[in-house]
Amino acid sequence: MDAARTLFAERGYNAATIRGIAASAGVDPALVHHYYGTKEKLFAAAMRLPVVPSEYIGAALAPGAWPDGTGLGEHIVRTALTLWESPGLMETFLGLFRSAVADEQAAVMLREFVTESILGAMGRAVGLDALPAAEAQYRAGLAASQMVGLAVTRLVLKFPAVTGASVDDLARAIGPAVERYLTGEIAVPARPSSSRRTGR
Amino acid sequence: MDAARTLFAERGYNAATIRGIAASAGVDPALVHHYYGTKEKLFAAAMRLPVVPSEYIGAALAPGAWPDGTGLGEHIVRTALTLWESPGLMETFLGLFRSAVADEQAAVMLREFVTESILGAMGRAVGLDALPAAEAQYRAGLAASQMVGLAVTRLVLKFPAVTGASVDDLARAIGPAVERYLTGEIAVPARPSSSRRTGR
Repeated sequence: MDAARTLFAERGYNAATIRGIAASAGVDPALVHHYYGTKEKLFAAAMRLPVVPSEYIGAALAPGAWPDGTGLGEHIVRTALTLWESPGLMETFLGLFRSAVADEQAAVMLREFVTESILGAMGRAVGLDALPAAEAQYRAGLAASQMVGLAVTRLVLKFPAVTGASVDDLARAIGPAVERYLTGEIAVPARPSSSRRTGR
Repeated sequence: MDAARTLFAERGYNAATIRGIAASAGVDPALVHHYYGTKEKLFAAAMRLPVVPSEYIGAALAPGAWPDGTGLGEHIVRTALTLWESPGLMETFLGLFRSAVADEQAAVMLREFVTESILGAMGRAVGLDALPAAEAQYRAGLAASQMVGLAVTRLVLKFPAVTGASVDDLARAIGPAVERYLTGEIAVPARPSSSRRTGR
């Protein structure tokens, strides 16, 4: 776990490998694979996440996993807000977020993890993976801009109107915006900037 | 300035007064009023903000201040994104935001300042002050959840799809969501939670 935390922090989520973490800990990579399975599960264990995001999101957004008459966006927002109330999750989120805000390299790790694990799973669940990569990334980025802002205003800055509203109220108010970003009419930048200027 | 920074940090934006700051600095309150005018201007000077938010927002959102055919929300997002590119502003924002994420009392100060100064000016400019207070606060809070998230994903976490997109692209994509929060069909919570649970 120490080796995993160190390598994820130093190299970021994408460049850290199970092989590298095993070498740093002086154990066989097969052992790490055996106990943790995937890099995402190893990260989740090292960071003490209460769930493995891709599993949780895959299950929550599976076809038929939500009531008829509830929009996709509303269901996504409700799922996220409900998950954020899990015991321990807020402390974990605040710890990762504080590090990311204070330190550029920690921001790289959090951004890569959110992109790969959370946005990746959400994208597959809602069919973004059928779109051109630049469009899928742009739509996921727009949705992230709303969901990250919801998390920060509700859990960190604690705006009274946002912390005081119920999960259902916020899901109904914010869900349509998230749904539009993911599946609605959005002008996708002609030259996908995500491949042009990734480091800005 | 030292006395102002200390008192804003200790008491928050709302409870700090020009009178208290003057007393702490050992000067006559009339002198502080003479040089700084309002508490907001004193705060802006103490925190080295490049603009006084209520003046900047009032001017940017004044009737006729933006081109025909551009929606209100699109204009708000474009105005914010453009302002964020001002020299020095990002460093100031990052400093305030880092403190707020690390420290509960700094979060109180930033939340109260954003609510009073930034959201207050935006609300007056778009007519929220004509609505019941609870509805005005809820709509402003929803808009804040999107705008704060845009700032955090573009300036702090630097999601490639968000940092790489142009101001115009993002204004067109995100503007309609902000406009809906401010003026569209939104179910406002029946019992306004902002007065019920302000301290959560």
